[in-house]
Amino acid sequence: MSEHAINLRGKFDLFTQQWSPRVIAQMNDYQFKLVRIQGDFIWHDHPDTDETFLVLEGRLRIEFEDGSVELKAGELYVVTKGRRHKPSASEEAKVMLIEPRGVVNTGREGGPRTAENDLWI
Amino acid sequence: MSEHAINLRGKFDLFTQQWSPRVIAQMNDYQFKLVRIQGDFIWHDHPDTDETFLVLEGRLRIEFEDGSVELKAGELYVVTKGRRHKPSASEEAKVMLIEPRGVVNTGREGGPRTAENDLWI
Repeated sequence: MSEHAINLRGKFDLFTQQWSPRVIAQMNDYQFKLVRIQGDFIWHDHPDTDETFLVLEGRLRIEFEDGSVELKAGELYVVTKGRRHKPSASEEAKVMLIEPRGVVNTGREGGPRTAENDLWI
Repeated sequence: MSEHAINLRGKFDLFTQQWSPRVIAQMNDYQFKLVRIQGDFIWHDHPDTDETFLVLEGRLRIEFEDGSVELKAGELYVVTKGRRHKPSASEEAKVMLIEPRGVVNTGREGGPRTAENDLWI
């Protein structure tokens, strides 16, 4: 039986909504999520876990209270547990997030930017 | 303070050895490892964990006892816990593995193809 790999570009073609992570795979209790990012997100942190950003297209900026990091396509960054951060992108960036299942995108801030979890595509 | 993202292509330029995974980042107790794959690996499984393959360049084939999957650049596949598999590539493929720290590349098979762990680049 021939199985299919998960094509990241093909999965991005299935949605256009920004800031709404879509799950494409799960490894143990971690999920791989695709997200379209444009504009500024809110300051937040994840008190219980690190969070990985891998940029697939475009450019992503992550601000910290003590600095920032710029990622372009093919670059990865791990935001450590509890570190306050604010992602942003001047033009739309296509990003893969890797983090434990159930992590809330707005961390302990909550509010209207909070996205639904477990939206598989 | 401006921090640096991890550039996957740049990290691959730092080593040429095949079948020798190099760690580039850690998220909680999981590691991101880059590996150059060419030829056939051995049949093995990982009894305690799933394992993720993301192909960055080239093509990767993973055989299972009941089938196979072919991955090209930009494609991802999660091999589930305990599933026997044999990765191979006719030409060199550049692959990122995501799995818990300490996973042995040959699983419970061991033997001469077993690679050293925690080789950071």
